Amino acid sequence: MSESAERDARHKARMERKKALIDERIAQAQDEYGLLLVHTGNGKGKSSSAFGMVARALGHGIKVGIVQFIKGSATTGEEAFFRRFPQEVRYHVMGGGFTWETQDRQRDISMAKAAWAIAVELMSDPEIGLVVLDELNIALKYGYLELSEVLADIEARPMLQHVVVTGRGAPPAMIEAADTVTEMGLIKHAYKNGVKAQPGVEY
Amino acid sequence: MSESAERDARHKARMERKKALIDERIAQAQDEYGLLLVHTGNGKGKSSSAFGMVARALGHGIKVGIVQFIKGSATTGEEAFFRRFPQEVRYHVMGGGFTWETQDRQRDISMAKAAWAIAVELMSDPEIGLVVLDELNIALKYGYLELSEVLADIEARPMLQHVVVTGRGAPPAMIEAADTVTEMGLIKHAYKNGVKAQPGVEY
Repeated sequence: MSESAERDARHKARMERKKALIDERIAQAQDEYGLLLVHTGNGKGKSSSAFGMVARALGHGIKVGIVQFIKGSATTGEEAFFRRFPQEVRYHVMGGGFTWETQDRQRDISMAKAAWAIAVELMSDPEIGLVVLDELNIALKYGYLELSEVLADIEARPMLQHVVVTGRGAPPAMIEAADTVTEMGLIKHAYKNGVKAQPGVEY
Repeated sequence: MSESAERDARHKARMERKKALIDERIAQAQDEYGLLLVHTGNGKGKSSSAFGMVARALGHGIKVGIVQFIKGSATTGEEAFFRRFPQEVRYHVMGGGFTWETQDRQRDISMAKAAWAIAVELMSDPEIGLVVLDELNIALKYGYLELSEVLADIEARPMLQHVVVTGRGAPPAMIEAADTVTEMGLIKHAYKNGVKAQPGVEY
């Protein structure tokens, strides 16, 4: 079977399973398939919650793929930590810094596309049970990636693979496609009292 | 210096630092002290976000203490995973199951108190940079622990130690005491479509 036919077959199987679930309106939650989870909102915890799921998955012997679409200047704690487990975690950080640091849109777009190609590779591997697409919503917001293509690629993943998408301002179509959406709301933030970002908390 | 005097001294130093920060209304966030973070609300990600912070902290070489106040019947992925690092993580799970499983309030109270004693021990160790008090809000909600004592013990921790408290229904005094509060709001949940809780996502 060609790669494209395999992909279509996976998509069809996924949609049939989803339709069957919804059609049957199962009273007791029984069935199992890979979820699309979206963490959005202006509060904290969108990315860290995804990284907590990585820890959970690893505890269950599930392999993980991570693509970070926004890279700050410093190596983050999560990157330093999860790179300790190269057999269990495939960790990719998109090159370059934030857009307002680089100020070169074409460069940002080509890096986002390269990062997305890696995401698609991870989402084609049924051995990987969880894929984290960290700050993907930001790349979509800036128009670095085509939303319809991104959603189609996510839909075409293996049946049992979970995907977590993080970032403020999740587009409505992403929320529509998701199984579970959490909005992290800001009630209070230490920055406002003059406390600087601290390792282990903010990055 | 006696233990109680040390504790009072730590509390005084913390309050002075906090007051100084607020008094000066520092325009640029510059200063550093251990934060109290609260993750509450009905959505997902309260605990997993705390466990993501654990990964971050470990990536920065920061030691971590974890107390889980609610234990389900199965070992969780986060427990299985973080127990791999006994030199870096002190992991404690309160004995017994959920309250509706045990139906023995006195037993639950004594277990909560024993778990709190461990939390206080972790919060007395300046070598530990991050303490996670997972589902503490639930123990408070059931009245298993005295809120005022809990808050006083948290305030008396070492200056640079971060504490994360999770669980729905954070009491107002906890929110008042916190530096950063995030409310995880539920927008959409896969359970409602008949999908069962899955390893790596829910536990």
